[in-house]
Amino acid sequence: MSNALRIGVAGLGNVGAPVLQLLTRHGEMIATRCGRPFHVTAVSARDRRKDRGFDVASVRWYEDAAALATDPEVDVVVELIGGSDGIAKTVVERALTRGADVVTANKALIAHHGTALARLAEANGACLAYEAAVAGGIPAIKTLREGLAANRIERVHGILNGTCNFILSSMRDTGREFGEVLAEAQKLGYAEADPAFDVDGIDAAHKLAILAALAFGCEVDFGSVHVEGIRGISALDMQFAEELGYRIKLLGIAEATEAGIVQRVHPCMIATGTPLAHVDGVFNAVSATGDFVDRIVAEGRGAGGGPTASAVVADIMDLARGARLPVFGVPAERLARNVPQPMSAHVGAYYLRLMVVDRPGVIASIAAVLRDQEISVEALLQRGRAPGEAVPLVIATHEAREANVRSTLDEIAAQETTLEAPRVIRIESL
Amino acid sequence: MSNALRIGVAGLGNVGAPVLQLLTRHGEMIATRCGRPFHVTAVSARDRRKDRGFDVASVRWYEDAAALATDPEVDVVVELIGGSDGIAKTVVERALTRGADVVTANKALIAHHGTALARLAEANGACLAYEAAVAGGIPAIKTLREGLAANRIERVHGILNGTCNFILSSMRDTGREFGEVLAEAQKLGYAEADPAFDVDGIDAAHKLAILAALAFGCEVDFGSVHVEGIRGISALDMQFAEELGYRIKLLGIAEATEAGIVQRVHPCMIATGTPLAHVDGVFNAVSATGDFVDRIVAEGRGAGGGPTASAVVADIMDLARGARLPVFGVPAERLARNVPQPMSAHVGAYYLRLMVVDRPGVIASIAAVLRDQEISVEALLQRGRAPGEAVPLVIATHEAREANVRSTLDEIAAQETTLEAPRVIRIESL
Repeated sequence: MSNALRIGVAGLGNVGAPVLQLLTRHGEMIATRCGRPFHVTAVSARDRRKDRGFDVASVRWYEDAAALATDPEVDVVVELIGGSDGIAKTVVERALTRGADVVTANKALIAHHGTALARLAEANGACLAYEAAVAGGIPAIKTLREGLAANRIERVHGILNGTCNFILSSMRDTGREFGEVLAEAQKLGYAEADPAFDVDGIDAAHKLAILAALAFGCEVDFGSVHVEGIRGISALDMQFAEELGYRIKLLGIAEATEAGIVQRVHPCMIATGTPLAHVDGVFNAVSATGDFVDRIVAEGRGAGGGPTASAVVADIMDLARGARLPVFGVPAERLARNVPQPMSAHVGAYYLRLMVVDRPGVIASIAAVLRDQEISVEALLQRGRAPGEAVPLVIATHEAREANVRSTLDEIAAQETTLEAPRVIRIESL
Repeated sequence: MSNALRIGVAGLGNVGAPVLQLLTRHGEMIATRCGRPFHVTAVSARDRRKDRGFDVASVRWYEDAAALATDPEVDVVVELIGGSDGIAKTVVERALTRGADVVTANKALIAHHGTALARLAEANGACLAYEAAVAGGIPAIKTLREGLAANRIERVHGILNGTCNFILSSMRDTGREFGEVLAEAQKLGYAEADPAFDVDGIDAAHKLAILAALAFGCEVDFGSVHVEGIRGISALDMQFAEELGYRIKLLGIAEATEAGIVQRVHPCMIATGTPLAHVDGVFNAVSATGDFVDRIVAEGRGAGGGPTASAVVADIMDLARGARLPVFGVPAERLARNVPQPMSAHVGAYYLRLMVVDRPGVIASIAAVLRDQEISVEALLQRGRAPGEAVPLVIATHEAREANVRSTLDEIAAQETTLEAPRVIRIESL
């Protein structure tokens, strides 16, 4: 076998090290499957001496990843540094500019600069692959770009952040509050010391923006994603969700509507019988609905060195086997410009939880506000009795317009019998 | 756009007609995604006049599908006739022999002749694609051959027959017996008039043999699949499964063991918390476990015109985009010869249901047989009381060797207090 594929790996951290281990352990199998061997010819990282389970003595070492990107003896540049800008972006741009193929696990980079990078890749006859950027080991990109390529996609949605899913699953299992479970997740290594990126929904929004571009053939439009995190979910809401037959999940949802593409990341209540309701812990899941295939759901580990390395190397293998697809499934010039839809136009069912004074007439006054905003009630639960004190009042609505729900809540919040800011969770029938 | 891909479709039935509809409806989108248009230049079917929602006047019509296969103006022959031999096989062989690519939905053909066809394709520089042959719209072939290509696969298993899954789900939901539910499935069109192919597990075994070849890089070995169907499952077993925390599913399971590849299709009890336990009705699911990616599960519609057409056209699109992969992921000459493992060597947990006379000493004599065969008991349930008459006695075992379980059951069946042939369902922790 000849014609070895020469690989340069920039970044030898949590993903880079397993990628090198995988290439070493499965070198022979990969060569058989691809019809050619892989050679790692160059690597780049900060500390040369760190033990990564891989002998770096035999390959060219770069302290400057940007220099690795322009090494003419590297056919495929694997960018595993991370971050939407800075050195990661420089590495990818330099590699593409000289026509080298790039494989990256960098969701922030693709979410922020995907369209420009797709144009750059095509202008130089290079490929840009990013399977590992979305849902770790799940071949979500391949499924959308190839497996379901014959379909007009109507919706793509999923559990895209393992940290949030772990926290929500654990809150449900233990009945504990968000803060306590977050601390445990941090101890277990499932959440970062600064958890904002995960728990505020930004990471999931990066992935959703990428999936939406692929699913609908439009430019990546991260800025238009409506994003809410999970900090506002309480143990009490978990209990009511259970009682109403729902699970609470942080979902990313992108839908093609007549007005344009809607992209949103927020906590959702979904019926316990639906496929995503059973995806617990750090697992991710991606669901796509197409006009011929109907609904496909794929579930797996959304993070971690092994699954991410699996996706990175699969991308390299595709390149080695000669697959050269447009970055988002269609030529960059054919990507549509999205018309973002404001969340106020959203129509759906809502879970509303109020904390109200337990006294006669309170429900009547709330019901009047709902009636005036034309919001009809599917279920109403009042838990406990504490005359003169705060009790939770839960309302599940039929389909309503978000703008009306917001007005309703403003009015209710202003009533003197309402003792806390109302909580809202959208109910999704997916 | 030039360089149109010329397609010939042999067979215009339940799959062929939706394929033509899809190509017509999404022609422009497909051309954009592939960088070239598709032209259906030839079709073949028995009855030219039948309305298929597609105008056949503009294309060449063949009464003889074998003649379509050798039409030099067909680049890709799409075989949708079905059957492991006969005309379908002739069509595929003739097309591959002249170097034309073939796309097929024919699981029986690939299961019986996959290795020989892979050799024929490679010898002539042709591709043979068969995504639609396994699990309908789920891109299971692509996931194994490409998405998880960097992994050594340890196990692949799944719900591979929608008819059986519908029947078992329905038995559980309604408490009714197999025969009654089968009749309903036939009325709904989910089961054939002659249901043997589905309910006896043969269809699932075809698909499993294909998945195993791909997962483990071995020759397709349908003959070595241990196959049991679902006719022996009773409403009573459904109840006991529920009580023990299990669901009953017909699974296909292929595992790499030190001795060789084990391939088996049979009813299984799986814990209610596992991903496949929640896949109900006509849905299929495929799960693969790899050394880096861990477990991936994909779920979707395993049959039907739309989903199958989605898979067929995805294969054509891959060919149009230039993907030319070996049929089973590695060159045919590198496919390993499987060493089949007898089911008697299987080690696992078992659910045993006996119908015994309700009288003192019966349990003691059964327990003695289990002890002598070194089978240890995880749970024992006796339901109801009917002195002197038949009562069910259920035993869930710890891990035991199948040969010992069979000997045990032979001994128990021979006891005069055993009134019916014992029922056995393997318990799988997947």
